[in-house]
Amino acid sequence: MATSDDIKATIEQYRATFSASDREGWLALFAPDATVEDPAGAEVKKGPDELGEFWDFVHSISPSIELRAAGPACVAGHEAAFPITIVSDLGGTLMGIDAIDVMTFTDDAQIATMRAFWDMAAMRELDGS
Amino acid sequence: MATSDDIKATIEQYRATFSASDREGWLALFAPDATVEDPAGAEVKKGPDELGEFWDFVHSISPSIELRAAGPACVAGHEAAFPITIVSDLGGTLMGIDAIDVMTFTDDAQIATMRAFWDMAAMRELDGS
Repeated sequence: MATSDDIKATIEQYRATFSASDREGWLALFAPDATVEDPAGAEVKKGPDELGEFWDFVHSISPSIELRAAGPACVAGHEAAFPITIVSDLGGTLMGIDAIDVMTFTDDAQIATMRAFWDMAAMRELDGS
Repeated sequence: MATSDDIKATIEQYRATFSASDREGWLALFAPDATVEDPAGAEVKKGPDELGEFWDFVHSISPSIELRAAGPACVAGHEAAFPITIVSDLGGTLMGIDAIDVMTFTDDAQIATMRAFWDMAAMRELDGS
């Protein structure tokens, strides 16, 4: 089974590749049949083609999206949850949404499932940081 | 369906009743057939009797346990996730564990399911606050 440190390393890479617009690096973190439900309750995307389409859709909204750690990752067995702030640069204005991602992991610490908790209504303008 | 504000109010009551050692108030927040999986991967407790036993077990470890909000609750539809610090007074020393609770809610904003993400290995001594 993946250790807590293995899982935290995958989460760190997940944030880093997303923030660096590294599409292939981000997709490589997922198991071949991984699912993404973002936000929770939305249609479930499965496999690299649908995950790639999801990536393209998100990055079509804003060319620059950063996933900032907003607290420690909490690991329980082969699952984890972690808070982030999703920061988008919309024409020079930084907008943030608080979110929590919940994931399960394979034995080699690939992402098996991801569900994201956030609400567009909670979007707010950030200080120019 | 419960609104985001309804769900956030239940979460606030969940933290407040737990921190105030209000066993009956805490149990009343759950639907009759609610389940608790704490930590995620552990045996699932179901219904008021098993949830009451869970409460008694947790409070037998420390007479004083506070659930401090550690960030905003993130609501998605009838589900939510929120970060907390579990603060226990162990003989005058305050110990903290970072955790994220993930819940689903009934139409009247009762807790239907709860899964908690934390790792005892992440327990740390807090400044005497």
